[in-house]
Amino acid sequence: MVDRTNRCYRLRRRPDGLVTPQDLELVEEGIPPLRDGQALVRTSWLSVDPTNRIWMSDLRGYLPPVAIDAVMRGLGIGEVVESRRDDFPVGAHVTGMLGFQDHCLVDDALLEAPLTVLPDPLPAPPQALLGALGHTGITAWLGIEDICRPAAGETVVVSAAAGAVGSIAGQLAKARGARVVGLAGSPEKCRHVVEDLGFDACVNYKDLDWAEQLARATPDGVDADFENVGGEIMDAVLLRLNIGARIALCGMISEYNDYGPGGGSTVPGQRAIGQLIMQRATMTGFLVLDHAARFPEAIAALAALAAEGRLRWTDTVVDGFESTIDALNQLFAGANTGKLLVRV
Amino acid sequence: MVDRTNRCYRLRRRPDGLVTPQDLELVEEGIPPLRDGQALVRTSWLSVDPTNRIWMSDLRGYLPPVAIDAVMRGLGIGEVVESRRDDFPVGAHVTGMLGFQDHCLVDDALLEAPLTVLPDPLPAPPQALLGALGHTGITAWLGIEDICRPAAGETVVVSAAAGAVGSIAGQLAKARGARVVGLAGSPEKCRHVVEDLGFDACVNYKDLDWAEQLARATPDGVDADFENVGGEIMDAVLLRLNIGARIALCGMISEYNDYGPGGGSTVPGQRAIGQLIMQRATMTGFLVLDHAARFPEAIAALAALAAEGRLRWTDTVVDGFESTIDALNQLFAGANTGKLLVRV
Repeated sequence: MVDRTNRCYRLRRRPDGLVTPQDLELVEEGIPPLRDGQALVRTSWLSVDPTNRIWMSDLRGYLPPVAIDAVMRGLGIGEVVESRRDDFPVGAHVTGMLGFQDHCLVDDALLEAPLTVLPDPLPAPPQALLGALGHTGITAWLGIEDICRPAAGETVVVSAAAGAVGSIAGQLAKARGARVVGLAGSPEKCRHVVEDLGFDACVNYKDLDWAEQLARATPDGVDADFENVGGEIMDAVLLRLNIGARIALCGMISEYNDYGPGGGSTVPGQRAIGQLIMQRATMTGFLVLDHAARFPEAIAALAALAAEGRLRWTDTVVDGFESTIDALNQLFAGANTGKLLVRV
Repeated sequence: MVDRTNRCYRLRRRPDGLVTPQDLELVEEGIPPLRDGQALVRTSWLSVDPTNRIWMSDLRGYLPPVAIDAVMRGLGIGEVVESRRDDFPVGAHVTGMLGFQDHCLVDDALLEAPLTVLPDPLPAPPQALLGALGHTGITAWLGIEDICRPAAGETVVVSAAAGAVGSIAGQLAKARGARVVGLAGSPEKCRHVVEDLGFDACVNYKDLDWAEQLARATPDGVDADFENVGGEIMDAVLLRLNIGARIALCGMISEYNDYGPGGGSTVPGQRAIGQLIMQRATMTGFLVLDHAARFPEAIAALAALAAEGRLRWTDTVVDGFESTIDALNQLFAGANTGKLLVRV
């Protein structure tokens, strides 16, 4: 028997700063009987990513903003619990934009993007398929392999180094022989990044002298930056660039709570972009969603490193669908280490 | 007989904002008799460029800051008036970093960079060899050909479109078949850019509704930006980018008067850099000095376009060496159209 009630978060208004229950309302809704060509997926894990926050803003983003009153967009993994279509058999594991809801109705006419049926048995635990062996790991791989391209002995800086993407990016740069310096927001995270993940150094950006620490940790300058944070942290890295440096602009989480209408941030902006001229550097923005054709190559590379014990990851698991808003806000407080997931 | 007095500008302190005679002191100094291996060049034209202002700041730039009490660094063209070395015969035209002085002592041990002896007769008027057929034109060519690479029908925005580099860059983009939209600071400049230089449109960024005008002038978005200005103007362009856009970061003149120690600007920074992620865009800083090997190719391309009547330029000539500081400050007031030169 299927539980015929769906719990979902609907976006009632665009948040100003951190997300509140008035912005994202948790509602219970009946699930109508399935029609032919439909299936029903019960969500088991939700991926909580900085980009969720972007989608809530009225921003010129890479996907349209989530419409007011629509179910919040989000990546997840789940299992087919009822089906009237052959390609989504009951019991199959499914991933994609399930949305912030505990049941997702699979219907080609209603879904924003098609869902993917995963192989059976799963090649890894489901949460890893949302993380290091899923879009998180692929994002890190694309930024390091396509944009940063560090040579052995070059210095790579990774901001949000204890975060889901940063932790993988730094290990991939290490695998290429680079010196890797992280930036993270607590002594515990810095210890984790160095001792558990093998970074060469990690600077706590909450220390008063963090910029001096960064300078000391990058005595030969910075050849590549895997950027997740933006703001003052990115400016400090830009001021350490070497000639010909590459910046993979993956995220700017420091400003996602502050986008004004149209997309410009309202926080004090980047002040060291001129260093791109001085150091003849290149900054390239990228999105994992553009590169679906390369996902198999990326996943194979990540899985191979993991099998060799050269790629590790940590999950921060928040239990309970009703904790999703808290989980999202944890990202901006830097409360998580590694991949942040909601166990539905 | 050679006039044995050299007038030169020495940098006495680093300017705060516009340049004053207390920052750059005009002094007269005797010229010692030449030794073997030396020659003396009398400056005929000085090139006045935004980069001069960068060199005065204590900034992590692409060349070391001009030392306090040193002669101000600058590009010029002149004629050998006395010589004790065979490769600099009397009467030869010479270009390079002559400095802000009316005589330059050619001495390999003293000069920061070697000077170049030009062919005789000169292939163009000397001021053109500092402008459209010199480093100015080559800068525009590198940014359009290597970075912006517009296809026919794409939209290219050029800021400081009536300036020395921007005016050439837009014409090069037009020659590739792009739609070219300029940004300039007066109705007269906008008229010049459209009517004389052939841009498709030009927006006066001093109009209150300039951002809306820019949006209307780029109905299909922006595929490439040749950026000379930075600040709010660049942010507005970034918010119009199409997916896969290219930004040639040539200059950020809006902040050169405001660099703090270390190189970060003190003006409100760039607020729309996140659009590089949203639009998967690439921003590449570049410097003409890196590409000396390609100067002949660039000059040949520029000269060919000029011969066909498809490349035009305007000079703003300031008469008299004693007016050099005024000329420099004109750049930041946007008082010049085209190449700004001092006729010494």
